[in-house]
Amino acid sequence: MKAKIHITPKKAVLDPQGKAVQNALAQLGHGNITAVHVGKYLELELAPGAERDATLVSLHEACRRFLTNPVIEDYQLSVE
Amino acid sequence: MKAKIHITPKKAVLDPQGKAVQNALAQLGHGNITAVHVGKYLELELAPGAERDATLVSLHEACRRFLTNPVIEDYQLSVE
Repeated sequence: MKAKIHITPKKAVLDPQGKAVQNALAQLGHGNITAVHVGKYLELELAPGAERDATLVSLHEACRRFLTNPVIEDYQLSVE
Repeated sequence: MKAKIHITPKKAVLDPQGKAVQNALAQLGHGNITAVHVGKYLELELAPGAERDATLVSLHEACRRFLTNPVIEDYQLSVE
């Protein structure tokens, strides 16, 4: 079983890294990009036999407590 | 239109950040995680009316030349 976590800056938060990437891309000729958001992507491999619901609850708690900063970041968690 | 890029370290490359996250999660009680891979996630908003195929080609080039380090990183690009 695998869990995928996407962590992105909240839309209301200034994203200087995204702005820098957007400017660099524009200078390289990719001018048709109107916005870039840079986030983190985590892939977690789970021990076989883990129970899906309990894993989801436990990973949501890990996201809130440790993996993300809920003040400035949003996350999306999926288990497959 | 939106492009999503997942950049992950190649499987053969040591991922110390992933290892650190895995150890930290284990100490927080999430011991059933066997591996963690930490990568980057980019969301690109494209100007309306952009042509899909040309955009894909141009973004693949941007990924290879600028956004990723092809020696140690893999990427996945999707446009939707």
